[in-house]
Amino acid sequence: MEQVLRKLAKEYQDLNGAEFTRIEGRYIQDSDWPRWQHIGRPVLIDDYFTFGEDEGWTDAWLREVFGSIPLSIAVTPDGAADALKEHSDGRTYFVEPLTEQQDITSFLASFGQDDATHQEVRYLQSQNGNIYNSSIPITELHALRQHIPLHVPFVHHSLGVEPDAVNLWIGDKRSVTSLHSDPYENIYHVIRGVKHFTLFPPTETCFFPDHEYPHATYTRTEAGLQLTPSDPAQHPPVRWLSFDPDNPPEGTRPLFITVRGGQTLYLPAGWNHHVRQAGLGEQGQGVCVALNWWYDVQMEGMTWVWLAFLRKGIRYLENEEEGRRD
Amino acid sequence: MEQVLRKLAKEYQDLNGAEFTRIEGRYIQDSDWPRWQHIGRPVLIDDYFTFGEDEGWTDAWLREVFGSIPLSIAVTPDGAADALKEHSDGRTYFVEPLTEQQDITSFLASFGQDDATHQEVRYLQSQNGNIYNSSIPITELHALRQHIPLHVPFVHHSLGVEPDAVNLWIGDKRSVTSLHSDPYENIYHVIRGVKHFTLFPPTETCFFPDHEYPHATYTRTEAGLQLTPSDPAQHPPVRWLSFDPDNPPEGTRPLFITVRGGQTLYLPAGWNHHVRQAGLGEQGQGVCVALNWWYDVQMEGMTWVWLAFLRKGIRYLENEEEGRRD
Repeated sequence: MEQVLRKLAKEYQDLNGAEFTRIEGRYIQDSDWPRWQHIGRPVLIDDYFTFGEDEGWTDAWLREVFGSIPLSIAVTPDGAADALKEHSDGRTYFVEPLTEQQDITSFLASFGQDDATHQEVRYLQSQNGNIYNSSIPITELHALRQHIPLHVPFVHHSLGVEPDAVNLWIGDKRSVTSLHSDPYENIYHVIRGVKHFTLFPPTETCFFPDHEYPHATYTRTEAGLQLTPSDPAQHPPVRWLSFDPDNPPEGTRPLFITVRGGQTLYLPAGWNHHVRQAGLGEQGQGVCVALNWWYDVQMEGMTWVWLAFLRKGIRYLENEEEGRRD
Repeated sequence: MEQVLRKLAKEYQDLNGAEFTRIEGRYIQDSDWPRWQHIGRPVLIDDYFTFGEDEGWTDAWLREVFGSIPLSIAVTPDGAADALKEHSDGRTYFVEPLTEQQDITSFLASFGQDDATHQEVRYLQSQNGNIYNSSIPITELHALRQHIPLHVPFVHHSLGVEPDAVNLWIGDKRSVTSLHSDPYENIYHVIRGVKHFTLFPPTETCFFPDHEYPHATYTRTEAGLQLTPSDPAQHPPVRWLSFDPDNPPEGTRPLFITVRGGQTLYLPAGWNHHVRQAGLGEQGQGVCVALNWWYDVQMEGMTWVWLAFLRKGIRYLENEEEGRRD
């Protein structure tokens, strides 16, 4: 089975190289989106969205939009949220961030500071459709809805579908998203700053060792943030890929895509992605502000079956629910 | 590996059922074709093409168009061309038809007769782009080009691609096409008569036993058509699926689609198809006249890798060229 997966990955590499498509937004036609879905490779789009051009989504503008609304902020000691971490008990955990409520003013004030409190890393990244969620009428960042399109026009015009979720992301260069894949078609738009994506196609998931890790979260104590193992009855172990960005496994061929303010990335369902970011300061200081739209993957046809096969890899014949096995 | 293939087939069936899409041609939009390609399931289209409505592609009209041009006709004793046949030597062969040149008048006269000569079954089915072939300037049925669109507008409008080949098919109910798949996207349009497709998705190829068979052709002798084994040095064995239409293998779920005059079928690349046909007579006598456009399968992305994997099935890790192994 492993040999089969390795051969599939190799054939995919041979056919597709390490290229990706780049297009000016104004040239997108109705047939492009379903074609991109079919090909299932990343597409980088320039100057498609025009919202945000006037207001620039500056700190002042963000403060005006959100006022005193409490925002859910992910807090970690080092910027690694939803990531593997070795605990003082010697075990490696999958650690979720502490979530704290904070208004936009104090949240934005946490960047570019260096006193002790602010050595914690804060990231607005709730990933639950914080602007729009197809199953929740009012969401935390509702106020932003009037300033953005709630669907991506080239998706909506061609297929008429609505997104499952629209998210806002605000963080700085200390925050890194560890390697993972999502069962969603992802349209990722950067407004301020830069996102650096390191991508691996679904066929290369098999090269990344994955294991089940006990679950933990960061909690706040008098001594600061502390990694706290969860009750396994409430939080079953999480299967996660292990990945060292400086040393990707033999056999993989990473695709590096930098998405700058004004650019939009189509990241197809099932692609493994590791994301770094930076602000526009000389050393990358300042925040990166980005939006993404998640659309359901096409369930009809082969895509789902194929992605499930590649994701489960050598465990394809096991009857496990992912992440639900004890 | 067989278990993996069986699970993939089952998951595909569970997700997709035994349904197919049907649409009126006038409602087709530019985004439909790439979406259909992505989903990769058959689509039956009504009243899309209007060519042929005036002239009806009657025998008289066909005689007028082709005059005395010699046409390549496939001749078999029983209508099974490119099919498995047991020889008097006790071995089963993959048998290609005898090809004879004949003008349209004598070809059409061979249907609905019952004298000894006409008990042979004739089928205009040269499958080599007899109307249009992207790599040959003049083809045998060149005369037909002015009467049909050389590309399918909904494909051309959306992606701008040209077909690899356009073929004419004229035969009657005695001719049957045995189960196989092609590495092409197939747009199949029936003008007169009826085609009955029995279809199995690429995920079910693994259920059909396939074997390598020595190659043979029909040759004409004084005693009539005779199955003649080929020189194996010139014609290596052919790998072919064995299939009994009345008894498809356990685990398969055939999709039956009847395509009538005026209807067009999109048959996605890699789908296994077995095809019967009939004329419009009370017992199905008379000829069925059909056209098809073959388009290259999308090589970018996953499709090719996935189809190759499913086609080779348990032999995926063998380094064989299909049909080229001795």
